Amino acid sequence: MLGEMLENVRAKRPLIHSITNYVTANDCANLLLACGASPVMACDENEVEDVTSICDGLSINIGTLDHRKVTAMLKAGQRAHALGHPVVLDPVGAGSSRFRTETALTLLREAGCSVVRGNASEIRTLALGAGATKGVDADLADRITSENLDRMAELVRRFAAETKTVAAATGAVDLVSDGERVFCIYNGHPMMSRVTGTGCQLSVLAAAYVTANPERKLEAAAAAVCALGLCGEKAYERMGPADGNASYRNYLIDAVYRLTGEELESGARYEIR
Amino acid sequence: MLGEMLENVRAKRPLIHSITNYVTANDCANLLLACGASPVMACDENEVEDVTSICDGLSINIGTLDHRKVTAMLKAGQRAHALGHPVVLDPVGAGSSRFRTETALTLLREAGCSVVRGNASEIRTLALGAGATKGVDADLADRITSENLDRMAELVRRFAAETKTVAAATGAVDLVSDGERVFCIYNGHPMMSRVTGTGCQLSVLAAAYVTANPERKLEAAAAAVCALGLCGEKAYERMGPADGNASYRNYLIDAVYRLTGEELESGARYEIR
Amino acid sequence: MLGEMLENVRAKRPLIHSITNYVTANDCANLLLACGASPVMACDENEVEDVTSICDGLSINIGTLDHRKVTAMLKAGQRAHALGHPVVLDPVGAGSSRFRTETALTLLREAGCSVVRGNASEIRTLALGAGATKGVDADLADRITSENLDRMAELVRRFAAETKTVAAATGAVDLVSDGERVFCIYNGHPMMSRVTGTGCQLSVLAAAYVTANPERKLEAAAAAVCALGLCGEKAYERMGPADGNASYRNYLIDAVYRLTGEELESGARYEIR
Repeated sequence: MLGEMLENVRAKRPLIHSITNYVTANDCANLLLACGASPVMACDENEVEDVTSICDGLSINIGTLDHRKVTAMLKAGQRAHALGHPVVLDPVGAGSSRFRTETALTLLREAGCSVVRGNASEIRTLALGAGATKGVDADLADRITSENLDRMAELVRRFAAETKTVAAATGAVDLVSDGERVFCIYNGHPMMSRVTGTGCQLSVLAAAYVTANPERKLEAAAAAVCALGLCGEKAYERMGPADGNASYRNYLIDAVYRLTGEELESGARYEIR
Repeated sequence: MLGEMLENVRAKRPLIHSITNYVTANDCANLLLACGASPVMACDENEVEDVTSICDGLSINIGTLDHRKVTAMLKAGQRAHALGHPVVLDPVGAGSSRFRTETALTLLREAGCSVVRGNASEIRTLALGAGATKGVDADLADRITSENLDRMAELVRRFAAETKTVAAATGAVDLVSDGERVFCIYNGHPMMSRVTGTGCQLSVLAAAYVTANPERKLEAAAAAVCALGLCGEKAYERMGPADGNASYRNYLIDAVYRLTGEELESGARYEIR
Repeated sequence: MLGEMLENVRAKRPLIHSITNYVTANDCANLLLACGASPVMACDENEVEDVTSICDGLSINIGTLDHRKVTAMLKAGQRAHALGHPVVLDPVGAGSSRFRTETALTLLREAGCSVVRGNASEIRTLALGAGATKGVDADLADRITSENLDRMAELVRRFAAETKTVAAATGAVDLVSDGERVFCIYNGHPMMSRVTGTGCQLSVLAAAYVTANPERKLEAAAAAVCALGLCGEKAYERMGPADGNASYRNYLIDAVYRLTGEELESGARYEIR
């Protein structure tokens, strides 16, 4: 099933409008090209509605948030929603400032989001309207581990139900829920946290998968999470003795470029609760 | 002849002021360093005139266009023009929104542009004042292929003549014209379209070549197009079984770094109409 | 001694708030992760104080300076200073425009800077309130070489004393001073100047080192300069016949990821004046 999701991306080549931060924009664009989708990145309020209209899906990422861009994010989200396009929100850094948290909550309410992808701290911040993140990485107390899996799974499930979204909280274990079922995903490698923006990359990948599989958003988002995690494992295997996080960054995107539906099908490690 | 153009870049080390988007700025800066030029990237209206004055050429790219930056682009272009510096315009995404198209047309008229480099859709949009692009990639209907080569060559030639620029429309075949002659260039590799920003990279490369060869703008722009296409071919040959678009991106810039005038001279594949 | 500085970064994993330019932001984030620190990049005046408060150190870089961001830089610097966090200023391009020079001087006076890291032209511009840089690279006349070492060392020492900072002027030879002693550092490789943003990377590395070694700012800044220079040498050794500046860029960050305290201790080449 998950392999089919990947193959739909390659077959449909969805055009994804991505309003994102300037730290990881290049990697996100190359990641979209790697998976078989196409990126467009526009962020001015004078054009985001036009641009979204010629796209198939929208990804909004609030890293390096600029208050001058919030209107553009809202306009793009509302237009995408009106056109029936999936909208993926990445609430980067929610919890690290009041401004960031409030903007994330506003976008969640008013930008037609159908998928939310963040780390455990960010999702918990949006769920509880509180919490503090340690920058863009998950707070230690908020890491999803086998110990607190049940509690976090329930938090994510409830958050998804209340916001009527597919919610993905990623960490050592990744949780994806549509408010009813919860995918617990065990793919991934710790090395992924040594590269900036693997979370941002996952969010645009989820946007591509969900856009190419609009009738099965939960499975599509879960497939994207499995796919990037699996690629993180494959990238690590490729590392030589002189390689560090810069080479790993390239290997990760390369692995997404090379990943087949069959490999995803057999390499995905998850259970459904 | 084309090899000499490359060698002039390495000998003169032109300083290129590049006002560009945040998605591909890093690659463009490294591409300029690879070819032997030097990058400066300033975009604030309070300083672009000062900065342009200490440079040798200017490249304006409207990817991730921000209306707050348009004044800076105009000021920089006018100052560069007054100083006799070549100004290269990359109308990224012209046709994908009214704002983008109108800004591109304004810059074309008022920013002293001597070279315009875009894909077929973008150039057609500027030529006809209409057309729609599929994001930043050329619309399928607008791809330059051997089938529609004559028609597109005439469109580019006329556009160059009317705007008094050297115009380059790139695709499967690349067309470069000064309004009289047209270079039809056959270098390049489809893999180049799987990396974000190869068009942006070509535009800054053209800026470096034209700046180092100001008396022969047509040949210089054509040499830049041949050079990047040839490097795209060489980069593809270097790919191993695990490599994808991220490694290819590096190999492309590496190839520009390594390319010699002799290799360009012998590897360029073009005809002049 | 220098090796211990590196090990403190890996042990303490300082969270560095980096307000920086969009050209090299991704490399700076990955460089911070490579050395063992963690990056946060926020730049909106509505949140920089909140964000800085959860961090351990601050790095301000004025590349691609935008006048709308200056208030955020000042607010972040003042808050960081009030919290006792080290503030590192990278005056990119000081001297290339009046706006850039004046902003750098304002930040130097009012943003609580404890470390300033620039090339020789930039430091001289701030020291003399004059001078012209050739873009972001050091002016030829301002390169630090064995010939003008004494004169430049004295300039840097005096600048550090007058501004009560640790000042680092980098070039063929690097000079780091706290106003009394001067470290003359001989690590590095010319290839580093063929990659965009190695100066920016050095500034965030210095921020990580100084933050993890707050009682020994001079030694920490010198250790960062030695470390990146040594990594530049190691990265060059790794280059194959087809590699250019793009691969070198990756090798440099990889080398920072792999560098041990022991290697830094034995590989650092410097004298103290």
